[in-house]
Amino acid sequence: MNYGFLGKIIRINLSDKSINIEKPDEIFYRTYMGGKGFIAHYLLKEVKANIDPLGEENKLIIAAGILTGLPVAGVPRFAVGAKSPLTGGYGQSEAGGFWGPELKKAGYDGIIIEGKSSIPVYIYINDDKIEIRSAKVIWGMETGDSQEAIFRELKDKSVKVLQIGPAGENLVKYACILNGLKHANGRNGLGAVMGSKGLRAVVVKGTKKIPFHDNERISKIGKSFLSYYMKNPLTRGLYEYGTVAGIMSNNAGGILPTRNFNDGEFDNAENISAEKMVDTILKKRVGCYACAVRCKRKVEVQTKDIKVEGKYGGPEYETVASFGSLCGNDNLEIIAKANELCNRLGMDTISAGMTVAFAMECFENGILNEDDFDGTNFSYGNQEAILDMINRIAKREGIGNILAEGSEAAAKIIGKGCGEFVLCVKGQELAMHEPRGKVGVGIGYAVCETGADHMVIGHDTLFGKTGFTLDSVKPFGILEPVDTVDLSWKKIRIFVYLQRWWSFFNMAGICNFVPVPRGAMPVSDVVELVKAATGWETSLWELMTAGERAINMARLFNLREGFTSDDDTLPDRLFGGLKKGRLKGNYILREDFKEAISTYYSMMGWDEKGVPTKGKLLELNISPEYF
Amino acid sequence: MNYGFLGKIIRINLSDKSINIEKPDEIFYRTYMGGKGFIAHYLLKEVKANIDPLGEENKLIIAAGILTGLPVAGVPRFAVGAKSPLTGGYGQSEAGGFWGPELKKAGYDGIIIEGKSSIPVYIYINDDKIEIRSAKVIWGMETGDSQEAIFRELKDKSVKVLQIGPAGENLVKYACILNGLKHANGRNGLGAVMGSKGLRAVVVKGTKKIPFHDNERISKIGKSFLSYYMKNPLTRGLYEYGTVAGIMSNNAGGILPTRNFNDGEFDNAENISAEKMVDTILKKRVGCYACAVRCKRKVEVQTKDIKVEGKYGGPEYETVASFGSLCGNDNLEIIAKANELCNRLGMDTISAGMTVAFAMECFENGILNEDDFDGTNFSYGNQEAILDMINRIAKREGIGNILAEGSEAAAKIIGKGCGEFVLCVKGQELAMHEPRGKVGVGIGYAVCETGADHMVIGHDTLFGKTGFTLDSVKPFGILEPVDTVDLSWKKIRIFVYLQRWWSFFNMAGICNFVPVPRGAMPVSDVVELVKAATGWETSLWELMTAGERAINMARLFNLREGFTSDDDTLPDRLFGGLKKGRLKGNYILREDFKEAISTYYSMMGWDEKGVPTKGKLLELNISPEYF
Repeated sequence: MNYGFLGKIIRINLSDKSINIEKPDEIFYRTYMGGKGFIAHYLLKEVKANIDPLGEENKLIIAAGILTGLPVAGVPRFAVGAKSPLTGGYGQSEAGGFWGPELKKAGYDGIIIEGKSSIPVYIYINDDKIEIRSAKVIWGMETGDSQEAIFRELKDKSVKVLQIGPAGENLVKYACILNGLKHANGRNGLGAVMGSKGLRAVVVKGTKKIPFHDNERISKIGKSFLSYYMKNPLTRGLYEYGTVAGIMSNNAGGILPTRNFNDGEFDNAENISAEKMVDTILKKRVGCYACAVRCKRKVEVQTKDIKVEGKYGGPEYETVASFGSLCGNDNLEIIAKANELCNRLGMDTISAGMTVAFAMECFENGILNEDDFDGTNFSYGNQEAILDMINRIAKREGIGNILAEGSEAAAKIIGKGCGEFVLCVKGQELAMHEPRGKVGVGIGYAVCETGADHMVIGHDTLFGKTGFTLDSVKPFGILEPVDTVDLSWKKIRIFVYLQRWWSFFNMAGICNFVPVPRGAMPVSDVVELVKAATGWETSLWELMTAGERAINMARLFNLREGFTSDDDTLPDRLFGGLKKGRLKGNYILREDFKEAISTYYSMMGWDEKGVPTKGKLLELNISPEYF
Repeated sequence: MNYGFLGKIIRINLSDKSINIEKPDEIFYRTYMGGKGFIAHYLLKEVKANIDPLGEENKLIIAAGILTGLPVAGVPRFAVGAKSPLTGGYGQSEAGGFWGPELKKAGYDGIIIEGKSSIPVYIYINDDKIEIRSAKVIWGMETGDSQEAIFRELKDKSVKVLQIGPAGENLVKYACILNGLKHANGRNGLGAVMGSKGLRAVVVKGTKKIPFHDNERISKIGKSFLSYYMKNPLTRGLYEYGTVAGIMSNNAGGILPTRNFNDGEFDNAENISAEKMVDTILKKRVGCYACAVRCKRKVEVQTKDIKVEGKYGGPEYETVASFGSLCGNDNLEIIAKANELCNRLGMDTISAGMTVAFAMECFENGILNEDDFDGTNFSYGNQEAILDMINRIAKREGIGNILAEGSEAAAKIIGKGCGEFVLCVKGQELAMHEPRGKVGVGIGYAVCETGADHMVIGHDTLFGKTGFTLDSVKPFGILEPVDTVDLSWKKIRIFVYLQRWWSFFNMAGICNFVPVPRGAMPVSDVVELVKAATGWETSLWELMTAGERAINMARLFNLREGFTSDDDTLPDRLFGGLKKGRLKGNYILREDFKEAISTYYSMMGWDEKGVPTKGKLLELNISPEYF
């Protein structure tokens, strides 16, 4: 009897339609745990170097975490991984919702999907029964329609549907994977990998009880969290205003990405604020499996021109910023519609918004003109044009076909020096966090294995003014605050430690809004949860080391694919001054940043080229067969 | 109000007789904790490079730990440090007993002793009153007599006396410091540093209550330990037989150091066994402050020729082996007397026994002869000669004056190729653990900052056959057993992790016989104890990192004093075969060992020369002012 994990991983080959159940031992689970740990393991061990991410040889790994499905707030998550078609490197994206817990209730910790189907298919897992079914009927449908069709076909509305949309089918390089129509494995274009395999959906029905070691202890920790989360400003804020709360605070701080990261302040920010959303289009605060925080939004719009359906959820901070301030658009209803469209079509709202903003800057600078946009004025703030472009990208129509490649690839096609308008790291677009005002996130963008990604260490590594409280991170031996724009070794040390913590979150299925430092659950309760779930006598030491192990394995994958230390940097724009806002003129000194990256390597036990030393790998129990 | 620590460190300058109280902040305590952490900090920061260890510029640091004095088993310890006159490098030795808790009850976490007194003195700390008093009367006395004299002078038999004996006064390079006549800061010759400063004793009387954060929780953990320690084979064995139990098990395993590490088996081992001791000379099982394990022995002998007084305790495993099998002596009463003499005179029993054995091997090989020993036959097993030599060394009489320099220095004086009989690392004699049968301890000897020392990681890094249970070390992420003679990276990984754990023990004042892996208290209870004592929301992560920090700082000290990677090796003898016993012929392959040391460096984040990288130091929050 295992606890916390089920000991079963499904391996499905879509080329030969074989379905097998693999049963790794407990040491495997304790070493890799799930999520990123599984993905890095399978990609390194089973995927050959230099394959085509959209070819038959790529593998799609769907991995729940060691805690996924625990009946307490904050642990509903799972990750999807593959070689990324957007970056060409280690690809990974996580999501919340209800799908991950359902997979575990069906009795599985993960799914390895290999090969490529000659016809569109979907996978249906109904407890012990696993089928590969034709997706002919749903192929081409928007996600809402296809989910309905699946419900009808299976005669069961309670199944959980993980799917791509038309964007994934059309191999849009930043196509996402959605569950429940609104919870997205957004980044890295993993929807395109699914599409390339002819796989439209993975549908799960699980009716078993997930075995946990000590349900009483789990319940106690869960209840304890409930007793204080509404008093904690971080978690209460997430309930009240959702992540969108970041709009006004970032705007005030001069770090709200605006007009493609030219500015740090947006004139009409209040029009797209969380307060505005609460007062107008918000219908409900919703959440993930077993979660009380309910940071997610359900919005509805019903005007003459715009109709937004509530079943697609609502825009989070990233989406409000990427289709709002970033595109110079102050219309919240348009943002809500953009979000809904992306969820209907299956596209990452961050990369989509960033690519639209890139195109707008090209237009503003005469590199693209109205002819390129079928006569449309594509300058900042053109609301109709934004919505139209989302459709064109997903369907690869006109210039949408170029923008569907992602902004970095698009710039290469367009040429004319527009590369300077690209805000990417390793080919993936920046999330909505401004490194010139919080440099920790800049380090995160630069070194993250998936390209610019705010999930390495979240939005900041700051203390004091906003964000983390110092007390919450003391268990990591972080005893002194460091300013948000400090790039010294003290900042890097904090980054290095919290990166491991967040890496572990991914492996466990933990959302970063529940535990400290961004949430309210103390470190010790998280460790206790792992103990209670698994029965392992574990420790923060072991969990941090596991997190570090996965970071190093993902790094190994990227090195194998040809990435070098030259790829661990930021877009040029960030080494120049912000043009507007409280931090106007602020920039990152290139030499300081290089020095910081070098310090990061050294702290990680990597050589000056960013290659993990053999000793570091062995210390982390990464055996030589991996490198 | 501080918890666990008092926030006060005494600084005494014996040259100008100044006494000051320093009050470091809480961050200092949480960073360095005590013991090794304090010592490494003060030695690196305040002691100039290349000074004479026996000169005025050396400093003697006496440091309790963050838990010292907690009213539960296993945390009575404190450490003494200075630049070592035996090794010329980082000097440190820890002891149990009652003195450490008494210092904390007087209100202090440590003492920094500087300068040199022109006349013999002792320090008397009576709560807030601190005096430097004349030691004219007691100078030259054996320890028992001087303690009595101090009791009389202060009219108080309850004061706790930490003192050197005549060996320390005479600057014997392996003179020790004793408290309560039997608890020794044995190694590294710190008694000679005390002697060189004209400081005979540090006497403490403390009547205050040590403030701990959560006495109820502390009591709960203490009671929990009491409920199972007698059922645990390790702790029960320590109670029943003391450390001496190791004689028969090591002999059976072929790893009992015999005849100066030529053999691994001793013919008459049963004559010096724990069972024999229990049946004959054992009078009482005694322990340290608040400890239930009572691993220490009180022995008495009263024959025509030999009288051993119980107040000097009894020989532990190290002493039984070093004056027994190592010297070819199977007479337990002689061993008991040798132990008593060392405690009367103030000498480390390990280095003393090893130096005697070295001289015996010189004699056996004709390098020294009867003329060198005033007509005595100094071959293995000559019982009278052993006792006589202890006196001569302490008083520096005849050849004793040469042997008082330690075996490595003595060999240089004697010459004639006798260096091959020296079993030292960095100038300090090996403890009674045979690396050819447990290679982990060999790594420990080689890399320990204090020279050959079994307190780096204790006696072994083994699982299975004897010793640690695998379950107890799983919180460290050690999930698989490794054989005792395995020198692969898997062994080094275990070593690297447990070395940090033991380093933290030193900083906290923890004895390694209570917590896992050598004792019975689980890792999580140790972490809980720190939380309960200090009120810090800490973690195993923070404690392990603190341990690693101190290891690196001590390493920095040695590098500054000129040590190089060439010093991280073992005596030649260990690369040759054992001559007798179950492991006859066993040897360590030199190339394997070099590779293991290289792997160790790399796992530590040190370069190929064993120098910590800047990144590793900064990651550990060791700021550039230290390097």
